[in-house]
Amino acid sequence: MKEVMAIIRPKMVAKTGKALEAVGFPAMTVIECFGRGKQKGYVDVNLPECCVDIKKVIEEGEKEGRFIKYIPKRLISIVVNDEDVPLVVGIIMKVNRTGKHGDGKIFVLPVEEAIRIRTGETGEQAIGN
Amino acid sequence: MKEVMAIIRPKMVAKTGKALEAVGFPAMTVIECFGRGKQKGYVDVNLPECCVDIKKVIEEGEKEGRFIKYIPKRLISIVVNDEDVPLVVGIIMKVNRTGKHGDGKIFVLPVEEAIRIRTGETGEQAIGN
Amino acid sequence: MKEVMAIIRPKMVAKTGKALEAVGFPAMTVIECFGRGKQKGYVDVNLPECCVDIKKVIEEGEKEGRFIKYIPKRLISIVVNDEDVPLVVGIIMKVNRTGKHGDGKIFVLPVEEAIRIRTGETGEQAIGN
Repeated sequence: MKEVMAIIRPKMVAKTGKALEAVGFPAMTVIECFGRGKQKGYVDVNLPECCVDIKKVIEEGEKEGRFIKYIPKRLISIVVNDEDVPLVVGIIMKVNRTGKHGDGKIFVLPVEEAIRIRTGETGEQAIGN
Repeated sequence: MKEVMAIIRPKMVAKTGKALEAVGFPAMTVIECFGRGKQKGYVDVNLPECCVDIKKVIEEGEKEGRFIKYIPKRLISIVVNDEDVPLVVGIIMKVNRTGKHGDGKIFVLPVEEAIRIRTGETGEQAIGN
Repeated sequence: MKEVMAIIRPKMVAKTGKALEAVGFPAMTVIECFGRGKQKGYVDVNLPECCVDIKKVIEEGEKEGRFIKYIPKRLISIVVNDEDVPLVVGIIMKVNRTGKHGDGKIFVLPVEEAIRIRTGETGEQAIGN
């Protein structure tokens, strides 16, 4: 079994979840997180819409400590059988790829055991439907 | 070493933590998350208490986009020696098993190294008491 | 590839992130979490500043159920090449080590694959700059 862990945009969670459910992966865990990557983005959570000179606003904000360097993201985690990894990765790629910085990353980690608490089922039975 | 990662009901965290501490596992990390599984539950975070026909309320809420499909859960993570995995899994199972959908899942992942930042201790010394 | 996962104090995130970026690791994911470890700390999130007898306040708070046993922490996650693990661990140790209980822990987990969603790059290309 593998954990497919993806760091994606918050607004992409619902669409990603629907796509995964549609092909038979209803189980998913979502965690709010903050990411930093190639975009190295500075985000003012209260940036006024009227800002015309974004660069200046950011520089000023940084001086005043108003900006955060971490962009709100969502970590989604799905544990699947080894043979399902390419499909799940493919779906996440398809839904989340806009071609812009900040699309996110996917990581695949080994999982040695899974147990469904309600039934005590393990392995494939625990992660299947 | 292994990471025992469990997705459980929020109200079960305190009880689970106490049970684990009682048998010698005081260290634990808790993360707020949202889960979706076999229960495929629709939850209205502001569902009025007076609702008599829950199904109808849910259907209406879905149409209006008022519902979230993800149920608040907690991810608890404990890193233990290999030989302690059955005990820790057993305790989590015992405390969290109600027999109802939504009891959650447990995953066991391999951990290659652990370091206690304060002392620089590694391996068993880093995760022990 | 490895995931270097560290549970650190919230106020140490910015400094840790800057240090990692300075040596070439701009990508990082930050998750709010709650930890419990050797410090077994009881924290009253609304503890009045005027408290002179902290122990008594804590005991009273516990009786009344006002205290939480979990201390706010941050989980930071960085996926790096195997050869970069000692450097990244060293930086996190250096920045976060105060010698006091609560400095946190670092865990190293195996990662089998990484994919940059924007480009489809995998492996070293996905986690590099």
